[in-house]
Amino acid sequence: MSKYVYGIDVGGTNIKFGLFLLPEMHLAHTYETETPVVDQQTSIFNKIIESITQINNEYNINFDDILGIGIAIPCPVKNDYVEHCPNLNWEDMNVSNELRKHLPKHVSVAVSNDATIAALGESQSFDKPYNSVVFYTLGTGVGGGIIIDGKILEGNTGFGGEIGHMWVSNEETDITCGCGSKGCLEQVCGTAAIFRYVKELSKDEKTSIDIKYLTVKNVFDAAKAGDSVGLKVVNRVAEYVAISASILAVVVDPEVFIIGGGISRAGGFLLDLIVDHYKKHARFSTYKIPFILAKTGNSAGLIGAAHLIKNKIQ
Amino acid sequence: MSKYVYGIDVGGTNIKFGLFLLPEMHLAHTYETETPVVDQQTSIFNKIIESITQINNEYNINFDDILGIGIAIPCPVKNDYVEHCPNLNWEDMNVSNELRKHLPKHVSVAVSNDATIAALGESQSFDKPYNSVVFYTLGTGVGGGIIIDGKILEGNTGFGGEIGHMWVSNEETDITCGCGSKGCLEQVCGTAAIFRYVKELSKDEKTSIDIKYLTVKNVFDAAKAGDSVGLKVVNRVAEYVAISASILAVVVDPEVFIIGGGISRAGGFLLDLIVDHYKKHARFSTYKIPFILAKTGNSAGLIGAAHLIKNKIQ
Repeated sequence: MSKYVYGIDVGGTNIKFGLFLLPEMHLAHTYETETPVVDQQTSIFNKIIESITQINNEYNINFDDILGIGIAIPCPVKNDYVEHCPNLNWEDMNVSNELRKHLPKHVSVAVSNDATIAALGESQSFDKPYNSVVFYTLGTGVGGGIIIDGKILEGNTGFGGEIGHMWVSNEETDITCGCGSKGCLEQVCGTAAIFRYVKELSKDEKTSIDIKYLTVKNVFDAAKAGDSVGLKVVNRVAEYVAISASILAVVVDPEVFIIGGGISRAGGFLLDLIVDHYKKHARFSTYKIPFILAKTGNSAGLIGAAHLIKNKIQ
Repeated sequence: MSKYVYGIDVGGTNIKFGLFLLPEMHLAHTYETETPVVDQQTSIFNKIIESITQINNEYNINFDDILGIGIAIPCPVKNDYVEHCPNLNWEDMNVSNELRKHLPKHVSVAVSNDATIAALGESQSFDKPYNSVVFYTLGTGVGGGIIIDGKILEGNTGFGGEIGHMWVSNEETDITCGCGSKGCLEQVCGTAAIFRYVKELSKDEKTSIDIKYLTVKNVFDAAKAGDSVGLKVVNRVAEYVAISASILAVVVDPEVFIIGGGISRAGGFLLDLIVDHYKKHARFSTYKIPFILAKTGNSAGLIGAAHLIKNKIQ
């Protein structure tokens, strides 16, 4: 009889489900539903169970054949425990224990942070899976995750791999990062930083970028077309990512850096710039570490969550 | 019958041996000898075997009761393999295989970098051993090691935990770090940086520090006595260590930072300054991570090497 695991990505807006066939981890079915907004301490778990039951029924799958459930959530997690998850209004909760209350005893549960789980998902999505990875998500927020020897680096309190808040810049600024500090990677490479820098430069320099309708895509398209403001802004993002990677290279020394998130849709153009800057900043032989683009897009959370639970029950 | 492991710390000048009684890891005997300087590709191994045989004979220990040998060496190591070890003139060598040629088959061997092994030694030397640690050695060189879940973070090519070469400073300078780059932690916190900064400040400022007979101890003693040049220099070291720790906190999120190396003999005075700066720079709740002083001194390599092999054979 076929056996399965679920990978579930719980976000503030939607919950995504992936049903994976063991042992090949073939993604058999996906499903998406809205995240409940009332009584989230209980309603999210009810919604997860309800959705799983529905998917099982639809595809004639018996709960006996579901061996485990992996869950990605948008906050720091340590050993399935969450102290504070503002996006889901969860406080002081062992997520795994909470979900298991509703499940048959044979179903294992594993939980971790969504960005680190995405790192695991990406690392496992290449023809030859990577064992040690630093994964970047470049977008409105800048984050990521670290995989060492095939395992998520959670850290002692769940802040492992929070690379968006590495200090990388001592540029003078009045603006404070969401974390309360200054000089974070997110503060110089996130979407807000890109828009801020475009506006600043456009005061003194002509640009083809429409300042009133700023999108990351427009900024990168302008840069690709040779717009000097666009080029400066993209270069700045690339150099700060490269500096942070040069630090991570002598700390973690991964097999590969994987670049994901909305900003990474700029593709090879951005990647080449990052690599150019990285080669200048890298120490010793770590300049050899390759950079590649993420490939699973929005499914990284599902895939990673499924691998997390697969690793646990294996 | 009692069983033992050896921890061996191979340096450019001396080779130190520790014989540890299993399973308590009681340090039964120590021995030190000079590192041979001719034909080091073979002579160092001969010297190790010769010394072990001598120690065994002296204490009436049969080789059958030696279960393993852990070795610390002063260069990057990956899976017992060394590409290039300038301090020992070793090239392209599997150190473990090389040593095992001279040993009875039942003796296991494990090899790793000396600073990372020292991290393991320190982590295991407290009443309650630590499982996840960032260890700093502050001295002529600045380095360290990272322990995650009780294991050394070697990295994919042996550069894991090379924290002395994290980029932390973009101060203008003509001086290049030993690694060929600029802005490394070692370049702003190592002994040479301390002396350079004292000399620079003393051009414009009165100081009680004897510029012609500079020692780290003199600089710290002057700082403790309120000398303004000494205080500025020590503060600078403390702040850069703190900045690097704030980065490592959101990457590794260790249980504890352990500060060792010659400069750490400044003790609580230095530690308190580091902690003050760290609290300003730390992100999220990582400001809670404690800093402690290393306690094993020059024995960290022996102890760590012994734990490395103990972990392997367990």
